Amino acid sequence: MTRSTPIKRRSFLKAAAGGAGATALAAGFGTPALAKDKIRWRMVTAWLPNFPGAGTAATLFARRIEAESDGRLSIQVYAAGELVPAFEAMDAVSKGTAQVGHGAPYYWKGKLTALQYLAAIPFGPTAQEQNAWFQFGGGQELADKLYAQLNCKFFPCGNTGVQMGGWFNREINSIDDFGGLKMRIPGLGGEVLRAAGATPDNLPLGEILPALQSGRIDATEFVGPYNDLALGLYRNARYYYYPGWHEPATCLDCFINLEAWNALSDDLKAIVEGVATQVNQLVLSEFVSRNGLALNTLVNQHGVELRPFSDDTLTALGQLSGEVLADLTASDAESAEIFSSLNAFRQEHMGWSDISEHAMLSARGLPYNWPG
Amino acid sequence: MTRSTPIKRRSFLKAAAGGAGATALAAGFGTPALAKDKIRWRMVTAWLPNFPGAGTAATLFARRIEAESDGRLSIQVYAAGELVPAFEAMDAVSKGTAQVGHGAPYYWKGKLTALQYLAAIPFGPTAQEQNAWFQFGGGQELADKLYAQLNCKFFPCGNTGVQMGGWFNREINSIDDFGGLKMRIPGLGGEVLRAAGATPDNLPLGEILPALQSGRIDATEFVGPYNDLALGLYRNARYYYYPGWHEPATCLDCFINLEAWNALSDDLKAIVEGVATQVNQLVLSEFVSRNGLALNTLVNQHGVELRPFSDDTLTALGQLSGEVLADLTASDAESAEIFSSLNAFRQEHMGWSDISEHAMLSARGLPYNWPG
Repeated sequence: MTRSTPIKRRSFLKAAAGGAGATALAAGFGTPALAKDKIRWRMVTAWLPNFPGAGTAATLFARRIEAESDGRLSIQVYAAGELVPAFEAMDAVSKGTAQVGHGAPYYWKGKLTALQYLAAIPFGPTAQEQNAWFQFGGGQELADKLYAQLNCKFFPCGNTGVQMGGWFNREINSIDDFGGLKMRIPGLGGEVLRAAGATPDNLPLGEILPALQSGRIDATEFVGPYNDLALGLYRNARYYYYPGWHEPATCLDCFINLEAWNALSDDLKAIVEGVATQVNQLVLSEFVSRNGLALNTLVNQHGVELRPFSDDTLTALGQLSGEVLADLTASDAESAEIFSSLNAFRQEHMGWSDISEHAMLSARGLPYNWPG
Repeated sequence: MTRSTPIKRRSFLKAAAGGAGATALAAGFGTPALAKDKIRWRMVTAWLPNFPGAGTAATLFARRIEAESDGRLSIQVYAAGELVPAFEAMDAVSKGTAQVGHGAPYYWKGKLTALQYLAAIPFGPTAQEQNAWFQFGGGQELADKLYAQLNCKFFPCGNTGVQMGGWFNREINSIDDFGGLKMRIPGLGGEVLRAAGATPDNLPLGEILPALQSGRIDATEFVGPYNDLALGLYRNARYYYYPGWHEPATCLDCFINLEAWNALSDDLKAIVEGVATQVNQLVLSEFVSRNGLALNTLVNQHGVELRPFSDDTLTALGQLSGEVLADLTASDAESAEIFSSLNAFRQEHMGWSDISEHAMLSARGLPYNWPG
């Protein structure tokens, strides 16, 4: 156990404070606040220091908890590599080296395959739908069952919204153009492209640009304009394709060591859960508010060529996605359980989605005059 | 001042606790927790008791604050009519009869015209975009300036998402079919329909169905399938039109009496702000998750005929919306300030919206096979 393990500190403080607490009770008060009974957590992340969106999510999580708990729970945030490398954040939290971590569920699919279905599903839910499934469709409970196997409590904690289809140096005019392509694309999207004849690779974000420069990869996706501009991907790729069929939304995760979580008082648990929900919302808002400007910068200042995947290409990718998802989930009961729940939600929801969000965005794009 | 005014209670308790507090400090502690220093608020709402979505938002707000503050701030929620009528909630909070209220910004446009632009804008932002504007586009600050004139602190606190276009007993095949129509439709959408020759009316939700039954109105909009099913609107109207061009999203508001707000400690302020953000997200998730099922029930069990407004009708409504918004904001500086900020956000964002959310939802609707 480390010095910062909350259970140990709390037990110690309770023992040390016994006599004085009794004095305060005798003076007519309830349990006195123990000013020194502060819990300190380490938070490891999969992100570069202060990386926009995902990286600031962790900082925001720590700052809001500190403010709402009046400093009773304080959290020191570590960027990738500061305490452990990006993809070892889950190990660190499982073991208790850190009490909390931040990343994306598909980063831990090597530990538990089913986790990747919580991050993003090709042709699957948008951010709004993902949140609805987690919060009202049984998703939180299913996710908690999986994370408990890694000794963690789970919260959705940030969402990128719709991603972009990726950066390419050759045109993608049909599904065949993915054949032989070496592309950085993690998770299920990578599996779909593998079925299309590409070689998918999952590089941590610090390695993407060098790999594109060296020719280790021909193409890459990352997130969307806001993050892709920050990473400088336009420097080594010409065409920027949309939409991000493979990640209609990507959920970021907050995972908390179960001993650290269980040691929290009920009000601190409520605060941590509440802050995760806030950060989940605020990060999406950050992406939504920053992507528009970043897109303009990419196109107008950096000469990026914006291209849509054709309907034929997207239909073929949709077809392959369905086949790959059916295959992958057939061989793993946990994956099947997650996918089946998400898919039932999708079936039930698609009719509404078509006549609400989709119909409204179509209407907004009609050719009427608008002030300003 | 009422018995429940927090300032008074806090002052009283501080005075009464002086001696005992000194004892605890002498024993080596910081400021002791005053177990009896509980703040009690009354929350008035514009909603029927336990009304789905909007009504449960207020209950959730109270329950989450109670949990996160460990009972230091407790809130008694009153449905419309229990303490004051629906549309007098703002008066009650401005004066301090209640400390907090929940409704929608356009309900208070009689007090301050500009507030309606915070609720919903015809052909304007979706829920995701509204949140982004409030949280990262300067919207919170602009809204706070307006609510301060009503002696209130403001938080966005729930969102319906895309609404439906309304319930009609005759077909709407062109913009001309709105001529002479008496329709319940509040806010800016009502002004647009007035320009189209209709007579808009803003009835509180308890009066909508009776007005439709008696023929006082010919048509009505309310929210979307989840709420409209609960209100029973299908009983007296045949056609259910989409999309809700007039309310691409509707923001619900939480408004807090400024003296009550300023009397809170910093950590309680942080908790209240945090809970408002959570509820804002959770209510949208509730609508998104429930609308799909409710739509199926309306169509399959109640024989409702679902109809799209034609592109020509929507284009004409978009054109009229732009004209009405330009006219209305030209004569009111506060309205102009809000609309101009929202419109700048819209201009900057539309390109991204087209290639992300809209392109993704179009792709998802292509004719590929899908498991399940």
